[in-house]
Amino acid sequence: MEKITSKQNARVKAWAKLATKKGREASGTYLLDGWHLVQEALNHKAKFHAIIVTEELLTEHQEEFPLGVPVFVVPTDIAKFIGDTVTPQGIFAEVTLPEKTFDPSYVHDGAWLLLDAIQDPGNIGTMVRTADAAGFRGVVLGEGSADVFGPKVVRAMQGSQFHLEVLKGDLTTWTEALQSNNIPVYGSELNPEAKNYREIDPSLDFALIMGNEGQGMAAELATKTTANLYIPITGDAESLNVGVAAGVLMFALKL
Amino acid sequence: MEKITSKQNARVKAWAKLATKKGREASGTYLLDGWHLVQEALNHKAKFHAIIVTEELLTEHQEEFPLGVPVFVVPTDIAKFIGDTVTPQGIFAEVTLPEKTFDPSYVHDGAWLLLDAIQDPGNIGTMVRTADAAGFRGVVLGEGSADVFGPKVVRAMQGSQFHLEVLKGDLTTWTEALQSNNIPVYGSELNPEAKNYREIDPSLDFALIMGNEGQGMAAELATKTTANLYIPITGDAESLNVGVAAGVLMFALKL
Repeated sequence: MEKITSKQNARVKAWAKLATKKGREASGTYLLDGWHLVQEALNHKAKFHAIIVTEELLTEHQEEFPLGVPVFVVPTDIAKFIGDTVTPQGIFAEVTLPEKTFDPSYVHDGAWLLLDAIQDPGNIGTMVRTADAAGFRGVVLGEGSADVFGPKVVRAMQGSQFHLEVLKGDLTTWTEALQSNNIPVYGSELNPEAKNYREIDPSLDFALIMGNEGQGMAAELATKTTANLYIPITGDAESLNVGVAAGVLMFALKL
Repeated sequence: MEKITSKQNARVKAWAKLATKKGREASGTYLLDGWHLVQEALNHKAKFHAIIVTEELLTEHQEEFPLGVPVFVVPTDIAKFIGDTVTPQGIFAEVTLPEKTFDPSYVHDGAWLLLDAIQDPGNIGTMVRTADAAGFRGVVLGEGSADVFGPKVVRAMQGSQFHLEVLKGDLTTWTEALQSNNIPVYGSELNPEAKNYREIDPSLDFALIMGNEGQGMAAELATKTTANLYIPITGDAESLNVGVAAGVLMFALKL
């Protein structure tokens, strides 16, 4: 166990850099903030590089720490400096970034959520969490989506990255590969010429694409889907929040 | 038209105070931030007290301003000071707070969303917007819910407060009154002993109660409902975001 008291400490600087994509890619790790996420990582055998903890949280949780992982005790101001929230709990784990490559031509079943250029980290995290709750097999982030291991996404996922596959991939490749394996791929559009989602029978094996908050899904990709679905808006709202729309569709489509 | 250049100006101080519940209650007004919301207020004949605008947005929209409403031109730093976002568009309207009293014993139809002590302003705003999209008649905020005319809720509602009723009320009174009028009231619980929401046939007239993010709905209130519903979690997530859960339920229950 090592005590760190200065923000100038090289490790502290390195942890703070994990808030950026560049920093995470350089180290191959990301940061979990709070005991709930640290526990999830323990339960799912994530590879731990370090535990960073305040005196108070050390007393509370030390007995549950994994063996052989370096523990660093820091004051509250360093916890705030490393964390993304105003009042972090005071316990972090630095864990290995999952480096999953996944060839979609081997996917023959399960429900999959494909995210096309989703910008807002909170929306991505909420959708991963909802996909987990709905029993989806995985989430695939296409190009232009915010990075899934940034602090805001990690917070909103609430540990769901340990329960289902969270992958990067080319959504056109995924769409074509799944369809070759007889898995329907549904796009989502704010277009009444698309199909009312209520017309689709719930099933176990399918993919759903959610598009960018402002632009919707890429027009090119929309031409390649099995069908494009819309949620009928019966009131005067112009649209739904993308995370809410994804929830409505996932729970309606999944058997 | 009046130019204001100092943050010390009494009007500027008064507008800034509208970010607080106390400030809004003292003046009986609240602030709309951005041209989209100002337009919604115009379209729905809200009572305007003032338009606050930067030079740039004045040029762009002046012709559409309502007659007889005082217009105040301010520099960008004052717009930032008044607004709740880092980069406000530069146009605000101060409008009258709706003061709606509504006796639920007169409610004989429609779908109603009842919010029991929802804390997060973004969640409240998203649920009002979703209720609007799903064709609900109104949203009733019970005691302990965040104030619906605070800047974060107003931003997330995206103008839906002009499309459906947004009311305060005692949820026990509402629940009993609606049931007396043969309108079923569904609670929502994270309790597998509750009823799977998929067992409820969609209908036009009902109420749905969503509970506090951490605690769920009040136990006392849950005993008074027609039935309590749960969304089956098939994956490993512990729960759904309350805004997502509300969306899944509203679209599944509403005919």
